[in-house]
Amino acid sequence: MPADSASALQWLYEHSRETARFYSALELLAWDQRTMLAPAGHDWRGEQVAALMGLVQSRLQDPARGERLTQLETAADLSPEDEAAVFHWRREYHRAVRVPLDLVRAKVIATSKAEMVWQEARPANAWPVLQPLLEEVVRLKKEEAACLADSGQPLYDVLLDEFEPGETTARLEPLFDALAAGLRPILDAILGSPRRMSERPLQGAYPVPAQQQLNRNLCEALGFSFESGRLDVSAHPFSCAPGPRDHRITTRHCESNFLESLYGVLHEAGHSLYMIGLPEAHWGTPLGSYISLGVHESQSRLWENMVGRSLGFCRWLTPLAKDSLPCLSGLTPDKLWRSVNMVSPSLIRTEADEVTYCLHVILRFRLETALMDGRLEVKDLPEAWDAGMEALLGIRPDCPANGVMQDMHWPAGAIGYFPTYALGTMYAAQLYAAATADLGGEHAMDARMAAGEFSPLLTWLRERVHCHGMRYMPQELIRQATGQEPSPRFLLEHLARRHQDVHGI
Amino acid sequence: MPADSASALQWLYEHSRETARFYSALELLAWDQRTMLAPAGHDWRGEQVAALMGLVQSRLQDPARGERLTQLETAADLSPEDEAAVFHWRREYHRAVRVPLDLVRAKVIATSKAEMVWQEARPANAWPVLQPLLEEVVRLKKEEAACLADSGQPLYDVLLDEFEPGETTARLEPLFDALAAGLRPILDAILGSPRRMSERPLQGAYPVPAQQQLNRNLCEALGFSFESGRLDVSAHPFSCAPGPRDHRITTRHCESNFLESLYGVLHEAGHSLYMIGLPEAHWGTPLGSYISLGVHESQSRLWENMVGRSLGFCRWLTPLAKDSLPCLSGLTPDKLWRSVNMVSPSLIRTEADEVTYCLHVILRFRLETALMDGRLEVKDLPEAWDAGMEALLGIRPDCPANGVMQDMHWPAGAIGYFPTYALGTMYAAQLYAAATADLGGEHAMDARMAAGEFSPLLTWLRERVHCHGMRYMPQELIRQATGQEPSPRFLLEHLARRHQDVHGI
Repeated sequence: MPADSASALQWLYEHSRETARFYSALELLAWDQRTMLAPAGHDWRGEQVAALMGLVQSRLQDPARGERLTQLETAADLSPEDEAAVFHWRREYHRAVRVPLDLVRAKVIATSKAEMVWQEARPANAWPVLQPLLEEVVRLKKEEAACLADSGQPLYDVLLDEFEPGETTARLEPLFDALAAGLRPILDAILGSPRRMSERPLQGAYPVPAQQQLNRNLCEALGFSFESGRLDVSAHPFSCAPGPRDHRITTRHCESNFLESLYGVLHEAGHSLYMIGLPEAHWGTPLGSYISLGVHESQSRLWENMVGRSLGFCRWLTPLAKDSLPCLSGLTPDKLWRSVNMVSPSLIRTEADEVTYCLHVILRFRLETALMDGRLEVKDLPEAWDAGMEALLGIRPDCPANGVMQDMHWPAGAIGYFPTYALGTMYAAQLYAAATADLGGEHAMDARMAAGEFSPLLTWLRERVHCHGMRYMPQELIRQATGQEPSPRFLLEHLARRHQDVHGI
Repeated sequence: MPADSASALQWLYEHSRETARFYSALELLAWDQRTMLAPAGHDWRGEQVAALMGLVQSRLQDPARGERLTQLETAADLSPEDEAAVFHWRREYHRAVRVPLDLVRAKVIATSKAEMVWQEARPANAWPVLQPLLEEVVRLKKEEAACLADSGQPLYDVLLDEFEPGETTARLEPLFDALAAGLRPILDAILGSPRRMSERPLQGAYPVPAQQQLNRNLCEALGFSFESGRLDVSAHPFSCAPGPRDHRITTRHCESNFLESLYGVLHEAGHSLYMIGLPEAHWGTPLGSYISLGVHESQSRLWENMVGRSLGFCRWLTPLAKDSLPCLSGLTPDKLWRSVNMVSPSLIRTEADEVTYCLHVILRFRLETALMDGRLEVKDLPEAWDAGMEALLGIRPDCPANGVMQDMHWPAGAIGYFPTYALGTMYAAQLYAAATADLGGEHAMDARMAAGEFSPLLTWLRERVHCHGMRYMPQELIRQATGQEPSPRFLLEHLARRHQDVHGI
């Protein structure tokens, strides 16, 4: 490599790491805001966050970055790793400089306002109050996408690409159609099964401190260490990493249902284990960052669903749960397993079971794409939503709060985000199938889960997924990790097999 | 005011507020590091802090600030408030630009290293290991002071001024001599009193959650609201304010002695009540900032000692403490009061009683000034320390860990900081005496404390001290608040009176 390319590269790496120091401080501010900050502290926190965001944004747009990136365009001898880093810096730079400052500001104002109004309008079912604000958000998102779009690129793809690099509507549409078509017969068979449980059998009184201890034990068994991590409480569970050895997850507790916090912790710990597995030496640069939200979600879903709802895992968990929660004295692994695998079409995405979950996402994807290419207007969303729910899940929302107004994503401007949930769920099944084949087959895997031996699976994920950071695009990463094209087949096979066992379908 | 002066002033206020947004983020990072951060997270936190510090430092040195400050030198029609703000910005700018970057770096490296070595060397009594590092710190502090000194200004005064604006050795020396001379007969009389208690009478088993609840109740009674504050646990208690409505104090618990955490909370809550009382509209500018560490300490000492060790307060606290801590069932207000007013010369400053505390500080002040003007060398510190202890307190350290090596301040480069502890203690007594006179005299004050009516005192402090921010220099502030010159007289009178009551001296 010529000396000037080498020094441009060096500069970009150091600039990236320095930006990460500020950005990770922002992550800590956000964590604190959601877990610790006293109610009256939020106004000033907003000002702190805005100041730091402005700083990070101005670093991302720094013309000195642009110059170095241009300079490296002609450098033919970059290593594949450096090539990947430069590619992602260029995407990031492009996004940072192509949207005019006025539009960025208008978007921040519109989404903050819509989010705030949504908080109050949702419980009041006040769709007419939210509608004009959502119209403004959609208008601005179209403008933003138009600034960023390459010639001929669909606007929705521009938004999608922010969360899932390289993903397109053209690829997702047939994939999600096939997924929806495959889920339907599985769901129908379960609904028709005489073995189906119709109520929650594990209702009880579960003291919060005992739940907390159980959840901590679970984290440690999975490989999440409290030497470099924390588990706290927040209204909406999340995970974050304000540093390469500073991994924080949160949960919320329901005193009558310990499974809510436990499976929430499994999910967030899955996210965290991905972050922990990223190569620390590259922290703050693309090779030390997660590649996409879809891949991120694949890790959380893998631990929550593929592992957490298996019979083996339930065998391991049962005595542990009984130790911490005496009112579970009558619990058996089989009962726990059936309980965490109940299936029933429901209105709220975040409470959906493993079979119906992706149908919720597909509904949103179809509506989002229609909104962005002009086939649908915001004012027609409620009707389109209800009709879509009926077509996909066979049920109709009783009110907007349980329908079109249930998610914060659209008011917050996160259009193009939902598909990553379904992609992640599919990738989880595909990765787990490959890991199972590599690690001795299903029987061996189940025995390992029953014994609480999670480390072979974690090692497999670290070697196949985590260690690559942003080296490969999501689809390529899944292809390389599993030896197969990304496909909904693995998820459908998994669900059919699991519910054959659970429900005799 | 001419338009250009007005606009320069406006610019400086906005710049100051924006800097405060970043600086207060640093405060949050520091709070998190001391209360929440997992052990493995500290390395990266160091990098985040360094990045943000660098940013704040470069804002403080911004030549655009210097230009505006110069421009305002000729502006004759500033309001007294703006005048005070400009004065303190100028001090800050001067400190930021006059020390060469190389020296700043060398100091950061030397003090970090000395602090780290001190952590291990102190428990090992390894003075020879610490000595060369301390020599380097002292050498660099002299260099720093030389860069900042006005012509003829003693080097020590430059360091002192950072913590206590306007304070000088020439003023402190006679003041501290008078204080030491006045304390000695009080101490001697107590030591000779037959009423003196020689052991801790309140040893017991105090569960931490019950202590926490009691401490929270205490905070709320004082006027510290959890709507805008938190109380957490850390190895070394501290208070901070990462936002104008975000006040955080910490404590540590000893299961056999609830008074340790309770009086620690009283002390830190005192600091916090000062911060809460600063005018919020001016937050992030000099008029919304504390004026000095001495005044800060006056607020903590006032609540801890003047209020907290009064008989009235003990009357109020006793039933509350008994409610939370059943093993105190035999406690009487009188027993509690005697217990928190025990006096005994001891080796460790942080554990010293109200009478001997300032003698510990005076020893350090004398050694520091001698170090800085070359009368004393670091290698001779241990001997000078032990001799000073003997002269002031009549006891000799059994080992360096309990003598010259006990404090972190010198390894951390905080030379000139100690005097603020004694100044604060003096100011606390002077302020309390003035408040007592204004609020109906001693009897009325004691009755108010016994009834848990703390708000008249707090209101008095807010109106006389808190609301002024940096408007007046410390001595002027005390003069205005109390109508008297700052003097050790009030502390000596208070101690004589209190220990007449407690010990019959």
